[in-house]
Amino acid sequence: MNASQDQANQRLDIRSIREAASRIHPYAHRTAVMTCESLNRFTGKNIFLKCEHLQRVGAFKFRGACNAVFSLNDEEARHGVVAHSSGNHAQALALAARIRKIPAYIVMPDNAPKVKKAAVAGYGAEITFCEPTLAARESTQQLVIDRTGATVVHPYDDPAVIAGQATAAAEMIDDVGDFDLILAPVGGGGLLAGTALSAKLMSKKTRVIGVEPAMADDAARSFAAGHIIPSNNPNTVADGLLTSLGHLNFPIIRECVDDILTVSEDSIIAAMRFMWERSKQLIEPSAAVPIAALLEGKLAHVQGRIGVILSGGNTDLDSLPWMR
Amino acid sequence: MNASQDQANQRLDIRSIREAASRIHPYAHRTAVMTCESLNRFTGKNIFLKCEHLQRVGAFKFRGACNAVFSLNDEEARHGVVAHSSGNHAQALALAARIRKIPAYIVMPDNAPKVKKAAVAGYGAEITFCEPTLAARESTQQLVIDRTGATVVHPYDDPAVIAGQATAAAEMIDDVGDFDLILAPVGGGGLLAGTALSAKLMSKKTRVIGVEPAMADDAARSFAAGHIIPSNNPNTVADGLLTSLGHLNFPIIRECVDDILTVSEDSIIAAMRFMWERSKQLIEPSAAVPIAALLEGKLAHVQGRIGVILSGGNTDLDSLPWMR
Repeated sequence: MNASQDQANQRLDIRSIREAASRIHPYAHRTAVMTCESLNRFTGKNIFLKCEHLQRVGAFKFRGACNAVFSLNDEEARHGVVAHSSGNHAQALALAARIRKIPAYIVMPDNAPKVKKAAVAGYGAEITFCEPTLAARESTQQLVIDRTGATVVHPYDDPAVIAGQATAAAEMIDDVGDFDLILAPVGGGGLLAGTALSAKLMSKKTRVIGVEPAMADDAARSFAAGHIIPSNNPNTVADGLLTSLGHLNFPIIRECVDDILTVSEDSIIAAMRFMWERSKQLIEPSAAVPIAALLEGKLAHVQGRIGVILSGGNTDLDSLPWMR
Repeated sequence: MNASQDQANQRLDIRSIREAASRIHPYAHRTAVMTCESLNRFTGKNIFLKCEHLQRVGAFKFRGACNAVFSLNDEEARHGVVAHSSGNHAQALALAARIRKIPAYIVMPDNAPKVKKAAVAGYGAEITFCEPTLAARESTQQLVIDRTGATVVHPYDDPAVIAGQATAAAEMIDDVGDFDLILAPVGGGGLLAGTALSAKLMSKKTRVIGVEPAMADDAARSFAAGHIIPSNNPNTVADGLLTSLGHLNFPIIRECVDDILTVSEDSIIAAMRFMWERSKQLIEPSAAVPIAALLEGKLAHVQGRIGVILSGGNTDLDSLPWMR
């Protein structure tokens, strides 16, 4: 365990999650917990849905970014925050920084969709474009840091971000009671690690299972192997789950998560469409991943109350997955 | 005023709406009232959204159908209910009848979309197909009545249906308080008449405005003329609003509704997409019609609290209006 992992584990107790909850409380939505009769009937389960697609910027990512931004001391904050991201984290960090009235610097690949560039710019962030490679993104980010002194807020490999994401499951448990099982999608592992921490710290009996696309199954393979195995050309409709597990997230997931399941692309698309038709909730493909596991019958043996984190609702309305 | 209009006006007092509410309470959802920050910001208004797209069968129609079915005496009920409809009313009536364990007979044009036939059949209704003309629908319905003795439940021109639809606005007022203005879409006028009755009976100050597509503006023309002018080849993306005003609805609308506005097709589609993107709520084109009036700036002068009935969420996910 390296120094930063040690620091993360020290910090990520129930108090750090409660502190994150107080810190983001004035700015983040306490999202609704919904049920869907059709989903319960089709699966034969008792399922509760934590509606993070109704969170600000349309995704749970605002929780982590907001906690990280408001955890900075005044001197750090003055120099702003920086991240390289073209996804929900970029918008989340830009909005959190705008609320604290500090600069946000976002490094984006120059081939990012226009609508994402516009959204981040709309939140007042300064965007620096770079070539669409990890090396270019990291070197460009370093140039921004050298110039501005901004603090990096990593999308998932950061204790404050993990504690922020943990507040979604904590709220769900506080609002509707204990669960037998909680499901969350896995990409970099920030949401899954946070969810598992909240579940295990608040309730001994709650099992936590991560679900990821079979086409981006680095978390399942890492979990089985006992060490991080990076993604290998992941290719999934669940575009929020392409990243490899983070180094702070992995030990938490190993310790607190009971299993990681994978689901097919067809089943993710069918689950997304099921939720659109039946619950009238516009969730993004990544959010449909745990629903896919339920509809596929992969959890047929599970009894009792099941919580699902619906992670986000940002998707391209000009190109729906079932039309491609 | 004919006998049935007189009967409707006698029955449709606040007590009949409260009775409808008690009657449907065990079966209908008390749907949420949501707000949408983006919508408030873009319009500069304080808007509350009554989520009837989250009602059973995905539309407010279940309220009226359920009230009508549970208003029947046992002898009437035994013979079942009948309607000709290929829309939300057919599903609503089929479900209400199934709950009361009585037969539902639905007359549908043989060219109705497969998915609608399947939905109605899925609720256990007996479907009789006919040619897609009003004459064929009415004569086929009469044959069903002659054979079964079933009671007709008209989609909107029925006092019990109007009282049922009225419960949506009544709940919204009960749950979040008084409004300065309530908006509802207008097709046959069941929802608008019910909404206006609830608003005027519960609050003196609340104005009620109906909104309809300019391409199906029979209600606006009838309202201005003081007598019913039937639809003339209506052609709108808001497929729930094609029908002409009902004879029971019109006098209520004349008495209790303050104005009827029209909106363009482009603006309906833009409003639907705005709500999908910003609120993550999957509403159908008809439900976007009042939102279109707000986004078009047609209500720029209105101050205070605005309630909107989001009437439904049933739309073809294989053919979205902005892709056609």
